[in-house]
Amino acid sequence: MSGAEMHALVERLYPICRSITGDGVRRTLELVSELLPLETHEVPTGTPVLDWTVPLEWNIRDAYIADTTGRRVVDFAESNLHVVGYSVPVHATMSRTELAEHLHTLPEHPAWIPYRTSYYAPTWGFCLAQRALDALPEGDYEVHIDSTLAEGHLTYGEHVVPGRVTDEVLVSCHVCHPSLANDNLAGIAVATFLARELAARQPYYTYRFLFAPGTIGAITWLARNAERVERVRHGLVLACAGDRGALTYKRSRRGDAPIDRVLEYVLRTSGREHTVVDFSPYGYDERQFCSPGFDLGVGSLSRTPYAGYPEYHTSADDPGFVSPDALADTLAVCREAFAVLDRDRRYVNLSPYGEPQLGRRGLYDSLGGRSDAKQAQLAMLWVLNLSDGGHSLLDIAERSGLPFASVTAAADALLAAGLLKE
Amino acid sequence: MSGAEMHALVERLYPICRSITGDGVRRTLELVSELLPLETHEVPTGTPVLDWTVPLEWNIRDAYIADTTGRRVVDFAESNLHVVGYSVPVHATMSRTELAEHLHTLPEHPAWIPYRTSYYAPTWGFCLAQRALDALPEGDYEVHIDSTLAEGHLTYGEHVVPGRVTDEVLVSCHVCHPSLANDNLAGIAVATFLARELAARQPYYTYRFLFAPGTIGAITWLARNAERVERVRHGLVLACAGDRGALTYKRSRRGDAPIDRVLEYVLRTSGREHTVVDFSPYGYDERQFCSPGFDLGVGSLSRTPYAGYPEYHTSADDPGFVSPDALADTLAVCREAFAVLDRDRRYVNLSPYGEPQLGRRGLYDSLGGRSDAKQAQLAMLWVLNLSDGGHSLLDIAERSGLPFASVTAAADALLAAGLLKE
Amino acid sequence: MSGAEMHALVERLYPICRSITGDGVRRTLELVSELLPLETHEVPTGTPVLDWTVPLEWNIRDAYIADTTGRRVVDFAESNLHVVGYSVPVHATMSRTELAEHLHTLPEHPAWIPYRTSYYAPTWGFCLAQRALDALPEGDYEVHIDSTLAEGHLTYGEHVVPGRVTDEVLVSCHVCHPSLANDNLAGIAVATFLARELAARQPYYTYRFLFAPGTIGAITWLARNAERVERVRHGLVLACAGDRGALTYKRSRRGDAPIDRVLEYVLRTSGREHTVVDFSPYGYDERQFCSPGFDLGVGSLSRTPYAGYPEYHTSADDPGFVSPDALADTLAVCREAFAVLDRDRRYVNLSPYGEPQLGRRGLYDSLGGRSDAKQAQLAMLWVLNLSDGGHSLLDIAERSGLPFASVTAAADALLAAGLLKE
Repeated sequence: MSGAEMHALVERLYPICRSITGDGVRRTLELVSELLPLETHEVPTGTPVLDWTVPLEWNIRDAYIADTTGRRVVDFAESNLHVVGYSVPVHATMSRTELAEHLHTLPEHPAWIPYRTSYYAPTWGFCLAQRALDALPEGDYEVHIDSTLAEGHLTYGEHVVPGRVTDEVLVSCHVCHPSLANDNLAGIAVATFLARELAARQPYYTYRFLFAPGTIGAITWLARNAERVERVRHGLVLACAGDRGALTYKRSRRGDAPIDRVLEYVLRTSGREHTVVDFSPYGYDERQFCSPGFDLGVGSLSRTPYAGYPEYHTSADDPGFVSPDALADTLAVCREAFAVLDRDRRYVNLSPYGEPQLGRRGLYDSLGGRSDAKQAQLAMLWVLNLSDGGHSLLDIAERSGLPFASVTAAADALLAAGLLKE
Repeated sequence: MSGAEMHALVERLYPICRSITGDGVRRTLELVSELLPLETHEVPTGTPVLDWTVPLEWNIRDAYIADTTGRRVVDFAESNLHVVGYSVPVHATMSRTELAEHLHTLPEHPAWIPYRTSYYAPTWGFCLAQRALDALPEGDYEVHIDSTLAEGHLTYGEHVVPGRVTDEVLVSCHVCHPSLANDNLAGIAVATFLARELAARQPYYTYRFLFAPGTIGAITWLARNAERVERVRHGLVLACAGDRGALTYKRSRRGDAPIDRVLEYVLRTSGREHTVVDFSPYGYDERQFCSPGFDLGVGSLSRTPYAGYPEYHTSADDPGFVSPDALADTLAVCREAFAVLDRDRRYVNLSPYGEPQLGRRGLYDSLGGRSDAKQAQLAMLWVLNLSDGGHSLLDIAERSGLPFASVTAAADALLAAGLLKE
Repeated sequence: MSGAEMHALVERLYPICRSITGDGVRRTLELVSELLPLETHEVPTGTPVLDWTVPLEWNIRDAYIADTTGRRVVDFAESNLHVVGYSVPVHATMSRTELAEHLHTLPEHPAWIPYRTSYYAPTWGFCLAQRALDALPEGDYEVHIDSTLAEGHLTYGEHVVPGRVTDEVLVSCHVCHPSLANDNLAGIAVATFLARELAARQPYYTYRFLFAPGTIGAITWLARNAERVERVRHGLVLACAGDRGALTYKRSRRGDAPIDRVLEYVLRTSGREHTVVDFSPYGYDERQFCSPGFDLGVGSLSRTPYAGYPEYHTSADDPGFVSPDALADTLAVCREAFAVLDRDRRYVNLSPYGEPQLGRRGLYDSLGGRSDAKQAQLAMLWVLNLSDGGHSLLDIAERSGLPFASVTAAADALLAAGLLKE
């Protein structure tokens, strides 16, 4: 099942040391490409992108803190979280006191390694468990970070599922976090398998999947795709998509965009426990897509949301924190939501004065007087009554209380009978 | 009292075998005409009406199922519900098994005869109590339906109460059901007595009462009255108006048409137990009046609504199921609602800068300082304050919490003082 | 503290016999002038003002009812409430029965003297405690009211605190009630001290304080200041501002004017017990400012509202009924509300495509990955995201849930960084 396959992808991607640039992102996109063909883009250091500039590319080969005996007390090879992302190279010996200024721990979770970065201020540092720090005696330590910050590229990948129209649905997930499973290997996995499913049928919209580093990656894509941005009708950011908590949908900045209505409808009518929260300009790349200049109809789907669980941005967010069932459930909601979004259109009743005579067209029971009108007939009457160009099929489903599938079946029958036009 | 008179009309109309065409409708309109003059319209078979065509006229003289001894085991003379409406003529002998395909019962109510029709698919059938069916032994039966389906007419009646303006209020009730008392002899009775009351005073609006067969009758009227339809400002469909349940108001498709606000206001402020439901494209002729091409502000008033009681469309919907008190109560609500509707207009305060000096005009207590301002004075201040052309008297009553009658009295006093204009 | 100072002003103003015209108003404005410079206006009797005319000026020197022994059983010198305001002069002897038609009491509060006026119907009368009336034996009484109704003036005062813009905030309080402390010496005291505070800093808006007799004073000001009325953006009527009840804010007629939103926001977020009520055309001078021709965004702030306490318009509304703490609390809410109102503006994000890079401008923490984003950073992201010209800082505070002060600090920082414009 796809839950297990998605979890296998999470496990495979987990060891890679990713950042906003560098070979970790490239390797991640390569592994995804084995499941889903990706077009990979390389944008040179120094390229202006909106208010930002593509930074130097960062790569790291090794890093450690060793005691005077040469024993590595902190070792990048054990966890890539040990090094502050974008650390400049360093090789020095210093006292524990001097070193302490470069160390980050989580005193409230003494066994966990925190995740820290310093993309835009050149510095270096190590992250470690509080109890590992507590175990370090006074004395001198050798610190070594074998990293490079150099002219290079920012890398992102895209996969497009062509639809019947060129209007686009943008699905995006950030690919810049190192060994953190839920954040966001889970999102990458759901996006990958969702794209595969969509590619298996020709959808109405064109679906664009974006695998890009957070913030700077989304900004780079937005800067380089002004024309495509204009075609984006709807969008969804996938993040923290695999933990065992209930689903959380975060509305777009608009708050009532079609994507908002669709996700809320699917979550509500599915009976799943879930939460819907308003937009806030903090979280993932919805921050960029929903900046006021773009103001796209892009929401975000997570399970436990941004910063909402103690394991968030720590070594405890490992593959065991992500569940195959949760991944499958997130995928199922995306599948259902995009099925509704894809089919939700407005029609115009071509016989709007009085009801058309459905019986003559074989669409209505000939025997009258019974009070148990069939759902299919009710759905046709609802579609006819509300198809005035102002109500979509989702509007009709919500107002009638009928299942979306009944409403679409009614619309199909009425289209076939020449009673509706798009 | 009118409750008893209305019930007497229900009893008088009950035995007639009505359908969407035929002499039953004509006879019904004749009996109503004894109380309320009607203009009767005859529309020939084959006339195109919107998406429909006026059907053949159906009449029936006799019908029965007889056993081999000649005994009538099912007899139209006992109840006109026994024959499926619009049954084609038949005279044949057949086995019980063959016959059974043409028989309709209600297994869950074994003593009741159901009501069935087949207007647009030529067939024949009998309805009977399940226990009558159970008592029929195997063997041959003679079936005889002495009906005609022939070129003829569709018949409907109108009564117009002229008002001070040509804008119209449409009150409609269906007259096509055979021996069913609540559905819709009760509606016919309330409409008849409501029209008599309105005729006794000159209302503001012109009130048009329509007594027409369901669906095809409303469609025929709409097709033939394009100009009048443009004048319909408000409307009410009366159906199932006499059972002992609480009143139900079904909103127009618009949901916030003046008729909706008035009915809800009257029901709410009257303290009656009642229900208000949203429009749905299922029920009575509001389906046609609220089709998207017309989208008239027409609601529907019932007691227990459409298909909401087990007696619905069965022989148990007899005159005993209808109560004189319920008929009188439905009539009272119509009377109150039309009184509000008729008086609900927008005015413009001619002295809108500051309050006008009411005392100088004899409209205000000269003694100041008391905190118990009289309702009449409060009402004048409210009418002055909100009469900006954007608020109607009902708006003012709702916003102020004052009775509608106080608000209209204030408006009358201010009009007389030259402080308001229409 | 200002609570005590305000209460001292209430006590000082309390003995004066005020009415809608006359020396009592002049003396009141003189005493206020000792604390706050006032521009005093004198408008001659007979001047047409909107629908009204400035009335004769009323002054009174003495009044009493004496028994046949010459003993004053009711004496204006003891309480100016004893005389019906605007009483015409009278000097006569009459029986208790004849006299009784001119006497006003409060049977439900037998120890209290009511407050009554008759501005526009020429008559005379006395107000007294019910138990004082009960103690009067049958017999003849001398009645004497030494008043004058003569050509003169209506008097009102203004104080203007100039702001950075000429758009105005109007703060008004009525000055026409005689010895009633809460109604409205409390409002006068709060207005006086509020104006002093505002004058101590240059506010954004120009604040106009109006000390005028109720109704006719407001109408006179409106009639004479057509040009200034156009500049009034916001306003607040202060009345009954010093009793021990919780604060009540009464919305403007518009219901969603900025002053409404600001007062509701400050009351809600301050945690104070309070009530917000909709506009009604009864109360104080908001009646005139919110008449439909002006429809100004003027609300009203009271503690226990209009006619909401038994002491209202009686001798029990004395300085003991007003509390220094309550006066200080009302002042504090006005101070907070005007601080918000004064700072609540809309800005435009000059870098609206994606987030601007705050880190490069020193506005953002360089260390990433932590989940405890600082409030200051959140506030900047909110201001950037919603500064599209359509959201004010108050909108942003309400939508983000962040304190208004954080939002304004963020806006200031972003303005300084050139990321926002007004």
